[in-house]
Amino acid sequence: MTTPLDQSQIEAMLKQSPFISFLGLTVTALDAGKQEVVMRAPMRPEFEREPGTRQWHGGPIASIIDTVGDYALVMFVGRGLPTINFRVDFFRPAIDTALICTGRVRRLGRTVGVADVDVHDEKGALIAIGRATYAI
Amino acid sequence: MTTPLDQSQIEAMLKQSPFISFLGLTVTALDAGKQEVVMRAPMRPEFEREPGTRQWHGGPIASIIDTVGDYALVMFVGRGLPTINFRVDFFRPAIDTALICTGRVRRLGRTVGVADVDVHDEKGALIAIGRATYAI
Amino acid sequence: MTTPLDQSQIEAMLKQSPFISFLGLTVTALDAGKQEVVMRAPMRPEFEREPGTRQWHGGPIASIIDTVGDYALVMFVGRGLPTINFRVDFFRPAIDTALICTGRVRRLGRTVGVADVDVHDEKGALIAIGRATYAI
Amino acid sequence: MTTPLDQSQIEAMLKQSPFISFLGLTVTALDAGKQEVVMRAPMRPEFEREPGTRQWHGGPIASIIDTVGDYALVMFVGRGLPTINFRVDFFRPAIDTALICTGRVRRLGRTVGVADVDVHDEKGALIAIGRATYAI
Repeated sequence: MTTPLDQSQIEAMLKQSPFISFLGLTVTALDAGKQEVVMRAPMRPEFEREPGTRQWHGGPIASIIDTVGDYALVMFVGRGLPTINFRVDFFRPAIDTALICTGRVRRLGRTVGVADVDVHDEKGALIAIGRATYAI
Repeated sequence: MTTPLDQSQIEAMLKQSPFISFLGLTVTALDAGKQEVVMRAPMRPEFEREPGTRQWHGGPIASIIDTVGDYALVMFVGRGLPTINFRVDFFRPAIDTALICTGRVRRLGRTVGVADVDVHDEKGALIAIGRATYAI
Repeated sequence: MTTPLDQSQIEAMLKQSPFISFLGLTVTALDAGKQEVVMRAPMRPEFEREPGTRQWHGGPIASIIDTVGDYALVMFVGRGLPTINFRVDFFRPAIDTALICTGRVRRLGRTVGVADVDVHDEKGALIAIGRATYAI
Repeated sequence: MTTPLDQSQIEAMLKQSPFISFLGLTVTALDAGKQEVVMRAPMRPEFEREPGTRQWHGGPIASIIDTVGDYALVMFVGRGLPTINFRVDFFRPAIDTALICTGRVRRLGRTVGVADVDVHDEKGALIAIGRATYAI
């Protein structure tokens, strides 16, 4: 279709949303050929599961997966896409770490898009995976 | 098994978690016989999808579903349960409203529990539904 | 919209499909007001998980869920709808029993429909639950 | 743990199950290092969606995904694992083709395993994707 969005265009869109700004997501890599976007999410005190543990609650991880999957498709569609549904699987606790999130387009159809997201901690351990369907 | 937790016990557990405190969830009804818990989540400025719209972003809705489903089971198990995976389906935008969330036990097994969550706005419209699996 | 399909119209559609005929589904109840359809699926030797156990393999149960959820919406839309995605949760083995499957509309939108399906055995035990999204 | 199963051991297990025999799955590749198994499923007349179309119904595709994901883990665990839940996303019709199904381990934990399955037609088009959780 049209030219894929570049990193600064995506970051400008991310900043527009109060909730995504709160998540603090930044784009660390973009590969239109592989249809992948990589984002980084820093830990915030509000995201802690139990006091003093520095462990992420699953809720913010799910929120990040929803957003990163969306932007893998946004790169090609040029606007935010409503989520139809998504699934998250949690594998390991994420403790005292930023999250490195790789979103990849699995399908970009006329009416529906699907993206997979892998979430790693800073040491490379796989924390959670997501699969999301968006309306196009 | 043992006596189900009551409202004040569940609210004390909710308050312990920094993230759940941030969500601001309060228990509005509890029915051990129907295996249901109802919680209310107020809108926060940080949860807004686009500036000035008062529309909830899907991320906090997913976070609330994960938590309310968990507590439908916590009522009977007496402690927080790690989420194995969950699915969220979004039906309608939630605008300028608190969310009324009904969690219901679908299965309480030896190793795995499953709960369904329906999320309504204050006018009774169905905003989103969730289904989650927890380790017991 | 238009008048909902009646039982004989739905059974005529079910028979058209070679695979659904093979499943042997019959409509046992239809309630347009509650947006529910109930179907019955008999056990077949080909569906057995391990030889001699008379236990259903999960695959045919998933197939039945996909179909029953579809027909909860077909009742109102009047034609077969392609499945976008679905989730199945298995609760208990189904042994030497027909399956009683209740499909219920959760959302009937302009472009997407969602249905829930509960699968019981003949004694009333909950065997599996499904949630499916269809293109309209 | 122990030595991963080889191709003949897995095919012997597949043949034991009446339903998997009916699906006609054969192992075409096995890579213990990549934790991947590839299986082939031929079209059968019973799997046809509408008469004369040679198009696969989604039900058998879902059944195949459940089984191939299971065997990605069976390769390392040495016995069949009950499915806790799974999700299937359908992308394109599969017409007059065998299915080539690649199952890959995403997590092999103490109590739960997760596998992804990609289903292609014989021309290499991506037909459907699955993600499944099994009890270990």
